Amino acid sequence: MPSRITDYTKYFSDLAKSIKASDVRELLKIVEQGGVISFAGGLPDPRTFPKKEISEIAVEVIEKYGDKALQYAPTKGVRFFIETVKEFSERHGVKVNPDDDVIVTTGSQQALYLVARTFLNPGDYIVTEEPTYLGMLSALQGLGVNFITVPIDEDGMRTDILEERLREAKSQGIKPKMIYTIPTSHNPGGTTLPMDRRKHLMELAEEYDLIVFEDDPYGFITFEERDVKPLKTLDESGRVVYTSTISKILSPGMRVGWVIAHKDIVAKIELVKQGVDLHTPSFTQYIAAEAMKKGIIDERIPFIKQLYREKRDAMIGALQDYMPEGVRWTRPIGGMFIWVWLPEDINSREMLTIAIRKGVAYVPGDAFYPRGGGHNTMRLNFSYPSIEEIREGVKRIAESIKEYRESKKS
Amino acid sequence: MPSRITDYTKYFSDLAKSIKASDVRELLKIVEQGGVISFAGGLPDPRTFPKKEISEIAVEVIEKYGDKALQYAPTKGVRFFIETVKEFSERHGVKVNPDDDVIVTTGSQQALYLVARTFLNPGDYIVTEEPTYLGMLSALQGLGVNFITVPIDEDGMRTDILEERLREAKSQGIKPKMIYTIPTSHNPGGTTLPMDRRKHLMELAEEYDLIVFEDDPYGFITFEERDVKPLKTLDESGRVVYTSTISKILSPGMRVGWVIAHKDIVAKIELVKQGVDLHTPSFTQYIAAEAMKKGIIDERIPFIKQLYREKRDAMIGALQDYMPEGVRWTRPIGGMFIWVWLPEDINSREMLTIAIRKGVAYVPGDAFYPRGGGHNTMRLNFSYPSIEEIREGVKRIAESIKEYRESKKS
Repeated sequence: MPSRITDYTKYFSDLAKSIKASDVRELLKIVEQGGVISFAGGLPDPRTFPKKEISEIAVEVIEKYGDKALQYAPTKGVRFFIETVKEFSERHGVKVNPDDDVIVTTGSQQALYLVARTFLNPGDYIVTEEPTYLGMLSALQGLGVNFITVPIDEDGMRTDILEERLREAKSQGIKPKMIYTIPTSHNPGGTTLPMDRRKHLMELAEEYDLIVFEDDPYGFITFEERDVKPLKTLDESGRVVYTSTISKILSPGMRVGWVIAHKDIVAKIELVKQGVDLHTPSFTQYIAAEAMKKGIIDERIPFIKQLYREKRDAMIGALQDYMPEGVRWTRPIGGMFIWVWLPEDINSREMLTIAIRKGVAYVPGDAFYPRGGGHNTMRLNFSYPSIEEIREGVKRIAESIKEYRESKKS
Repeated sequence: MPSRITDYTKYFSDLAKSIKASDVRELLKIVEQGGVISFAGGLPDPRTFPKKEISEIAVEVIEKYGDKALQYAPTKGVRFFIETVKEFSERHGVKVNPDDDVIVTTGSQQALYLVARTFLNPGDYIVTEEPTYLGMLSALQGLGVNFITVPIDEDGMRTDILEERLREAKSQGIKPKMIYTIPTSHNPGGTTLPMDRRKHLMELAEEYDLIVFEDDPYGFITFEERDVKPLKTLDESGRVVYTSTISKILSPGMRVGWVIAHKDIVAKIELVKQGVDLHTPSFTQYIAAEAMKKGIIDERIPFIKQLYREKRDAMIGALQDYMPEGVRWTRPIGGMFIWVWLPEDINSREMLTIAIRKGVAYVPGDAFYPRGGGHNTMRLNFSYPSIEEIREGVKRIAESIKEYRESKKS
């Protein structure tokens, strides 16, 4: 399947930095022959796409709004989309203040890029979880920012350590500008920040005058109940910049995301976006808005939750069954990833070539550490592979660990 | 109509810099009441959108490729799209060399942004026409580049002056990196560069080792024959970076553009794009590719050419009938704009408030001058307004000139 190959190609170009070119070629050959189970990607299960409904909506959008849906549109977004996102967000527990505004983005990747370019200058400090989202690191590339990183545990960001780090920074005369976080169903961490830590984070943001950039792609498909609210909803001073997307609830191939923030912030983002791509496709904005408005997305959400819950259960079960002692992992209540801490003696990047020969792939966790570290961690995706593949793949990782350790002994 | 109001809002925010806020409010009121004919926008006539065919293709794409067309896709683009663009380009006289590659962009605005960010650093020099495209100025915003500008005449860039400017720059130790140009149906100039000037430009690019960034959104809908070839086709050393789009031949609301360039250049652009929006919507890439493949676009082109030829003729006719002595304009053989040089005593930005009160809008030409100047110029769009509106609007501009001159006497 091409999407998987593509998937791998990225990892190989990454891997190529650490292993020999001939190894890369050999591994690529193995992958192309098929039979490698990938936990490395980050794709939704295509069964979550309501194809029939999207098809019907596409026809209707052209019929009802064709002259506008196929025409240039304002940079900030189609009015129908903006109004619908506000309503959809409120309905799903994301508070939109009277002073807030919405801007559409070409996927939430563009939200990361635009917010970074709007607020950060070379030399600025940004606070992130450790590990943090690869897409954010990609958005920050070339900007020349510095990182203050805060480790996670099974519950996400250690806000007690965040407090320490901010105090340290201040004592060194450093004033970070922004904290970037995925509080719910973290990628890659698979963690969800409890309410008390959310409040702590917001208090610290207030005290240190930080912009809080809340990335929330998975908030609508949490498959286990938790008493948590978006940081956006705890915001009292207009410092939270919230982003979400239809990528996990309708279709990533539409590239429709959005930012909700104070209107002055949205106006600044709009100026940057104008030069970047003028506007996000009006056609896919109309389709996304109709899917929200008609309840297509709301109807689909229970199915998505059930599907991913089953897959997570399968992966947790397999980890429990196959992993040797000393391996820990997170237990996500949403999202698409499980984070694994291996024992200290294992370098997951080194181990990957063994794993691929055995027919399984994952992302070495060090890729998610902006300041280095994480050699003994890995990210496993459970949303795309089948339940059978999940069990078999985890078993192969366990075998890889064994073989890796043996190779180190000899 | 909202698209027109949006249109105006941009101009008012621009105008607001030069006129009183109370004037802006008054003018905005006039516009909202309707009755203002806009030559200010840059919208295709929506009659050019093959709505029925796009609707059918959308359904077919979901049926045939749904799992891929709604899924994440490679940053460089969907393979089907890339192959189809190569074939489409070759068929329409844009040479794709064996060493060339294609990357999809979210509209050609993103191509401008990505190419600028890939090649230009703060302090670098870029050569552009004077006037040049507003979207390119928008893409360059915040980059801190310097401009070397070359005036146009009725045939486009004065390559004799380009030669002078490059020689001057060299004598001052300045080495420009790139020349950005719209050789065919220039926006805003409405000019098409003759073949001898194209060759001269390419010789100079060779001599001064410049990247040639060729922006070609209108090349496929030239409505009067000319013996000209894209610069890309004259390229012998892989220095031309070519961009085009479906915006004027299918639908701007799809946001599908592309870059054709040497594969090493494409690889660099791909790296930048990954952080910007991960990828362009797979869904609209598939639709665009199917529309090219099925011949929907080729079938539509003669209609688009005829429609815009008639509108251009109407505008040229009205200019001849109504404009006072001393006014000159270009005679476009394609594209959507006519460029007007007014006599030196007229400041088109000052005159705009009079024009709007009289019920007509245009873009003051100075907006297109990166280094200032052009006070007596204006850009007129003929693709969107009706033929009746074109005649009436030009008449109102002529009346505005009269009133402006009278106001200066008193």
